[in-house]
Amino acid sequence: MKYLSAQKKWNGWGLKGKAYPTENLRSDFYSLLQNLLEIKQMEIRNPAPKEDFKIPTSIFSPAEIKEFQSIVTKNRFTIENDVRLMHARGRSFPDLLALRRGKIETFPDAVIYPVSESEVAAVLDLAARKKIAVIPYGGGSSVVGGINALKLKSQKGILVVNMERMNRQISMDHFSMSATFECGISGPDLEAILNKQGYTIGHFPQSFEFSTLGGWIAARGSGYFSGVYGKAEDMLLSCNVISPNGKIETENFPASSQGPCLNQIVAGSEGTLGIITQATLKIHKKEQNLVYKALLFPDYPAALAALRKFKQSGIILHMARLSDPEETRYFSMMSKSSGKKNAVFISILQNKILRFLGYKQPSVMLTVGEPDQYKNIKAIQKKSEKSKILKYLSLGKKPVADWFLNRYEFPYLRDELLDHGIGAETFETSMTWSNLEKLRTEIYKTVEKLQKTNGLKCILMSHISHSYKTGAAIYFTLIYRLADNPLEQWKIIKKNVTDTIVKHKGSLSHHHGIGADHRQWLIDKMGQAEKQLLQSIKKQLDPSTIMNPGKLF
Amino acid sequence: MKYLSAQKKWNGWGLKGKAYPTENLRSDFYSLLQNLLEIKQMEIRNPAPKEDFKIPTSIFSPAEIKEFQSIVTKNRFTIENDVRLMHARGRSFPDLLALRRGKIETFPDAVIYPVSESEVAAVLDLAARKKIAVIPYGGGSSVVGGINALKLKSQKGILVVNMERMNRQISMDHFSMSATFECGISGPDLEAILNKQGYTIGHFPQSFEFSTLGGWIAARGSGYFSGVYGKAEDMLLSCNVISPNGKIETENFPASSQGPCLNQIVAGSEGTLGIITQATLKIHKKEQNLVYKALLFPDYPAALAALRKFKQSGIILHMARLSDPEETRYFSMMSKSSGKKNAVFISILQNKILRFLGYKQPSVMLTVGEPDQYKNIKAIQKKSEKSKILKYLSLGKKPVADWFLNRYEFPYLRDELLDHGIGAETFETSMTWSNLEKLRTEIYKTVEKLQKTNGLKCILMSHISHSYKTGAAIYFTLIYRLADNPLEQWKIIKKNVTDTIVKHKGSLSHHHGIGADHRQWLIDKMGQAEKQLLQSIKKQLDPSTIMNPGKLF
Repeated sequence: MKYLSAQKKWNGWGLKGKAYPTENLRSDFYSLLQNLLEIKQMEIRNPAPKEDFKIPTSIFSPAEIKEFQSIVTKNRFTIENDVRLMHARGRSFPDLLALRRGKIETFPDAVIYPVSESEVAAVLDLAARKKIAVIPYGGGSSVVGGINALKLKSQKGILVVNMERMNRQISMDHFSMSATFECGISGPDLEAILNKQGYTIGHFPQSFEFSTLGGWIAARGSGYFSGVYGKAEDMLLSCNVISPNGKIETENFPASSQGPCLNQIVAGSEGTLGIITQATLKIHKKEQNLVYKALLFPDYPAALAALRKFKQSGIILHMARLSDPEETRYFSMMSKSSGKKNAVFISILQNKILRFLGYKQPSVMLTVGEPDQYKNIKAIQKKSEKSKILKYLSLGKKPVADWFLNRYEFPYLRDELLDHGIGAETFETSMTWSNLEKLRTEIYKTVEKLQKTNGLKCILMSHISHSYKTGAAIYFTLIYRLADNPLEQWKIIKKNVTDTIVKHKGSLSHHHGIGADHRQWLIDKMGQAEKQLLQSIKKQLDPSTIMNPGKLF
Repeated sequence: MKYLSAQKKWNGWGLKGKAYPTENLRSDFYSLLQNLLEIKQMEIRNPAPKEDFKIPTSIFSPAEIKEFQSIVTKNRFTIENDVRLMHARGRSFPDLLALRRGKIETFPDAVIYPVSESEVAAVLDLAARKKIAVIPYGGGSSVVGGINALKLKSQKGILVVNMERMNRQISMDHFSMSATFECGISGPDLEAILNKQGYTIGHFPQSFEFSTLGGWIAARGSGYFSGVYGKAEDMLLSCNVISPNGKIETENFPASSQGPCLNQIVAGSEGTLGIITQATLKIHKKEQNLVYKALLFPDYPAALAALRKFKQSGIILHMARLSDPEETRYFSMMSKSSGKKNAVFISILQNKILRFLGYKQPSVMLTVGEPDQYKNIKAIQKKSEKSKILKYLSLGKKPVADWFLNRYEFPYLRDELLDHGIGAETFETSMTWSNLEKLRTEIYKTVEKLQKTNGLKCILMSHISHSYKTGAAIYFTLIYRLADNPLEQWKIIKKNVTDTIVKHKGSLSHHHGIGADHRQWLIDKMGQAEKQLLQSIKKQLDPSTIMNPGKLF
């Protein structure tokens, strides 16, 4: 089968039969974690088998089933339990908890696989008439509850529209360096098509293998090379959207003075306004000679100042991923026994001479860029010798290459940790440079407080994942001992962390999206006029409120 | 007086008492034009005196006047005829024709000058209750009828809200390289504030001296350094908008996954949704060592290929303004007798050796950029020696410097040409690289046809004013003999040119805006769903339809 949904695990991240490569872990990884998280006895918590799920019969009547089948042919509409289970949840932390405990409140009633815009339009038309909720489904990798079936009073059934069969390239404009694709195409398929012709899309989110073009746009996704290629909304030149109120086609001008910009209304709409069926994107010559270089800074303020300096001096790195001292320390600690792989990195970190040299809270920045950009860094380094902010040691290419090897594997580790009673959750936000350090330290304080008042046993670390001239995106990883009721525990953590983010002027999300998980904060912080404006857009495109109900605004 | 509206001409471009510097024209400029445009006898057409205008009494009742005055104090609300005349029209070609013939159909009934957001809100509130149309007014430099008072059945009077007194800097964030201003601030005032601190906004439209921050955003303006700093909508980090339905405040995240993006709904809204009162913008270190260099290409295809190559190779020039062979020829011809100034440029153009070398249709590209970018050009030039597309002669700095000297003066020349019975109108659009050359040649054909069928006597030229990886913006200048009814003549030209632009996939505007002049084409080409969506946004923010009626959609 070439389609993603047939290859994926039904209750965890990624491909069937694939696990986190254990050779990437130090042999005493779990006992180390056991110590750090003060776990007396490590228990294996096996996920529930499929049979545990009580999947209610599809609500759709035989007549309705027939109607949908008549739109797409019989084999592209199904009410099979296995398929409905597969499409019931995304891959957020609470999604995994639900999938593992064998209890999901709400299932979609059917899944449909359109192959054309006219089929999508007919599906939405029928669904609107029947008041059936429609959930647009790309790769199903949402980590914010973006595609979850929710029980809502007004709706008569839930239909998932899986877009994976709309996966063709429609056209290519070499001259204008742009390409048009159907939006169900997956990351690897899209990139392979472009690579064959010497191009790249330059969009590599961690979900790359299990996400689609439509999902990237719908959630304003961002990948590790966003320093050069931008976020999904920056790549977008034009798109087609089928809404219950008709089709919108935007135009692919390189720039225009006509506002409001429809592309930027569609981007981030998370399936609540319609289904993005095709999009024209900027494409780029595939890079030939990228440099990979890890830079070790004596402490976090110095590293942060350097990163800001790079960005504000116009240095354009493909990637500049800055770990804070905690992440730097844990990463080096965790990979210790992986032996030769990280040898250079680790030996440097443990080097006493280094401490003597003032590297007391070393912070590592993993960078990728064109050779010229490193020349520019050298140049500004020379100029600012006195300020010392650009004092760093180069750890060479290895730590970056190792990180790349693991890049798409980490989400598998999350499942494995859950098997061991350990939670691994991430929180990400963006803010101005001025607000960054305050926000970061406040998150640490928030988690400390949870340790004191809620008995949370955890380790916390962060890295700056994306940065801009005016600010950056920061990504926190929390590894913690699961409580007896892990969902309740997660809710408390999520609430406290997100409250702190909002209080200290962070966005609700830089690239994961709003989904169901951030929705309440969004609604709470929106002004009246803004809320009404967004609702009027929703109402206009989706008058029957069938599109992905309970998500976004 | 420090406010713009007190310094400006009432019936032409720019400052009172200022004219196009005649020393910049060759002495036989007009006789040359007379020949080119086949004008038998050149007549001086003097503009009508103020007295010719029949300005109707303001429709506002004494009670209404009192109500408005109570919001802003007496001296910031006026129904004086002179002020109403000054605010009746922008500076489009038909605006100038109307102002010069002493006949304007519709005048605003009053002008108000708020100094705070609460005053703006109170003004809109009162206007909405009274069904009074509100025209937000920045610098009044719209060239698309964007601020013109229009007679519409439903409205009871027209109020211009002149924003020039909301001109303060509100805050500065050096760390995040951003600054917040009130939106009535003019280009020179804003730039001066930034320059003092070593920064620049990098936004220099031709209207720079007579436009405001609010206008830049409202019309998605673009300046000559957009190659580095982007368009107004790219500079915008956040803004406040007072709509008749309340205030919207957006947040200044460097990026966020939350959609729809409100900034990009506000940008380009042309005063139809509300009044943009303040905005936070990206700022930039003021450049120190920019290189100015004019490049002469043997022909247009070569020049075009080079420009595209620059953009698509990641060469970031502040400016790359490519004149087509016609513009190159006319510019050199017109500035001939300015003597030493353009000596180098001209002598090269006339050089017979040059023709011998294959420079048969020379096209000049005026460029500005950081020194490193020219090194990069050299590098790709070296690589692509065989393709010959990067064969050019450097004409040095002079032609660029001369262009800069004249940059803000050209609009004055438009008035002076009208005095001589000569029209000078510009048309601009943007499109993909693939569509550019077809569109350009079709515009030439369209004008040729008008010459044959409508007796149009003219010269036409074009330049690429802004360019991107995926396409460019092209700017046409038409110099022509005015007919007896110049407005009717203009309408025919405008219709034919714009029809051609739309037919060949150009945007309605890259940076001038839609205004009243492009509105019909916008409405005609919008799909049903798109039209309804935009109307629903309008209706939500402006339920009484008082904001800048008859503009945009």
